[in-house]
Amino acid sequence: MCRLVNEEGMGLDVVSAGELYTAMQAKFPPEKIFFHGNNKTMEELVMALQYGVGRIVVDNETELSLLNQLAISQNKKADVLFRIKPGIDANTHDFVRTGQIDSKFGLALETGEAFQVVKTALAMEGIHVRGIHCHIGSQIFDIAPFELAAEVMLGFMARIKAETGRELEELNLGGGFGIQYLPEHNPVEYERYMQQVSAVVRDTCKRLGIALPFIIIEPGRSIVGPAGITLYKVGSVKEIPGVRTYLSVDGGMGDNPRYALYQSAYGFVAAGKAGQPKDTMVTVAGKCCESGDLLGENVPLQKVGPGDVVAVLATGAYNYSMASNYNRNPRPAVVLVNKGEARVIVRRETLEDILRNDLD
Amino acid sequence: MCRLVNEEGMGLDVVSAGELYTAMQAKFPPEKIFFHGNNKTMEELVMALQYGVGRIVVDNETELSLLNQLAISQNKKADVLFRIKPGIDANTHDFVRTGQIDSKFGLALETGEAFQVVKTALAMEGIHVRGIHCHIGSQIFDIAPFELAAEVMLGFMARIKAETGRELEELNLGGGFGIQYLPEHNPVEYERYMQQVSAVVRDTCKRLGIALPFIIIEPGRSIVGPAGITLYKVGSVKEIPGVRTYLSVDGGMGDNPRYALYQSAYGFVAAGKAGQPKDTMVTVAGKCCESGDLLGENVPLQKVGPGDVVAVLATGAYNYSMASNYNRNPRPAVVLVNKGEARVIVRRETLEDILRNDLD
Repeated sequence: MCRLVNEEGMGLDVVSAGELYTAMQAKFPPEKIFFHGNNKTMEELVMALQYGVGRIVVDNETELSLLNQLAISQNKKADVLFRIKPGIDANTHDFVRTGQIDSKFGLALETGEAFQVVKTALAMEGIHVRGIHCHIGSQIFDIAPFELAAEVMLGFMARIKAETGRELEELNLGGGFGIQYLPEHNPVEYERYMQQVSAVVRDTCKRLGIALPFIIIEPGRSIVGPAGITLYKVGSVKEIPGVRTYLSVDGGMGDNPRYALYQSAYGFVAAGKAGQPKDTMVTVAGKCCESGDLLGENVPLQKVGPGDVVAVLATGAYNYSMASNYNRNPRPAVVLVNKGEARVIVRRETLEDILRNDLD
Repeated sequence: MCRLVNEEGMGLDVVSAGELYTAMQAKFPPEKIFFHGNNKTMEELVMALQYGVGRIVVDNETELSLLNQLAISQNKKADVLFRIKPGIDANTHDFVRTGQIDSKFGLALETGEAFQVVKTALAMEGIHVRGIHCHIGSQIFDIAPFELAAEVMLGFMARIKAETGRELEELNLGGGFGIQYLPEHNPVEYERYMQQVSAVVRDTCKRLGIALPFIIIEPGRSIVGPAGITLYKVGSVKEIPGVRTYLSVDGGMGDNPRYALYQSAYGFVAAGKAGQPKDTMVTVAGKCCESGDLLGENVPLQKVGPGDVVAVLATGAYNYSMASNYNRNPRPAVVLVNKGEARVIVRRETLEDILRNDLD
């Protein structure tokens, strides 16, 4: 996931050794990398320290204590943010709510846990506390929850200042900006977000008597999501009179499990017929061996038949990254199209790839 | 998936080029392979014909017509079964119901579709109609729906005989035998299933005046599911007073998406403590960057802490096969344990594996 870091340019969020390794192989500057995650393994923390990532976003006390030991043993000081649950209900799908107290992520404010852990960290030899981080959910279309989160987080920074004397310099307000999966979705405009949230930050800092922190946001999906389109070829069309019409395509929950997981809505369009009216209603099914392998149910689409290509819009995020080899289907290629030029950036998997790790 | 073929031994079901290729690389006899699936691509049908798979289980009319053309062009006759929806509600989870009329799989009886397609096939030069197939669902614990399915399917065979004069010789009654994910699950005993369903088949054939067909069943998951155990290492334990306790492990929906997909229940046990009482209640969370990345909620478990190993039982089916690289986490190794001997049969993925298909 991408993150904008003010005039210093873009940073990068990673949550695993694999993502970190990928970033390093792509020669991304490690000092601009933020290592997130609710359960970083020891190997991952060691790797993050060795590469010298910019910030480790500490999730819990066990991790803090382990990181402190590892940093000391390497004669380093780890620059950390703390993942805080600001307790905001961003009014989104249950699965992607991450700000409330009942979450696997982060430290709770209400119970005093967050304060206790930050205070402990301030006294640790291997830890340099830089600031705090929150992430209140995904697919959020209102600015209000972000404003509220900013207030709550700044309130916590004021408490830390008041009780420890330490003024934290960074506030990461996370992401979760909704994107346009369907025509009726109205994404948050960055400019309006910036104006409104900045005003809240300035006012709140003034009111609480704390210095303006360096603000970080994580627009991730809102950058890459709308940029992606997935293309499928139609196999059969199965009309069940009085029930519905199934359109089977040469992919499915293997390359995009989001409908099976969250009943996520997508826009569908027949390639080459975008200008024509969507005068049929179809259920788009994948080719995996289960009934739940669907990409959309009763969605409007132009009339298509076997061999036609159907495009699914806004599939640039959480698609290829979540793809599996379910039923040993190879994962598709990824093609970058820029100013009329196309380039394959991820090679299509081969059948040999799928067997690569199978031993005799 | 495995399938028992009477005294001729075990057959194999595949649903994709990848599964077929895997079977061929493992030197499985192609004549014992059954090629299923609601959307076989042309490439897959060509491959199935070239390898000479035993049966192609035709799902729909488009596929039948394509297969006929391909077989003729190769001077072959494809041996086929037809996937039929017997319209049985096997009283299981919506996602895994596959026998009713509203399904992406197969041909409907009620609408006359199935009869029409079989009749068409009987006159096709490239098609040898061998029989019919059904699959009424998954995790079924009653024998009654299987008996009913047998009756319905034999009734259809009798109709084909009456109206076309052709007596089909094979009846594949599919699978869906429930397995013991939780102590309260009572799997169908094969012997009782055999006795009861055989009696229904014999009686029905006699009543309908048709010859006893060769019967095939697909015990798949009921063989490999209970044979598998997944081991995770505990990272942190997060107790949220009055809410719940999260146990974060070094895996999650990446290696086992079934809880995220269907809220599938599993049995959990602390490795090395199986004999001790399960006196804590925990929510087992994975390490992926989303709140829905859980393996179980409020499940009983022995007390464990960071570094302990937790086993998840009955994970031999639909686990590794559905695993992804979500968050670029490498997929785990698979170890076969037999009579006290352990052997790695699938190598753990490396970080290099994950980048293998990324191009500059």
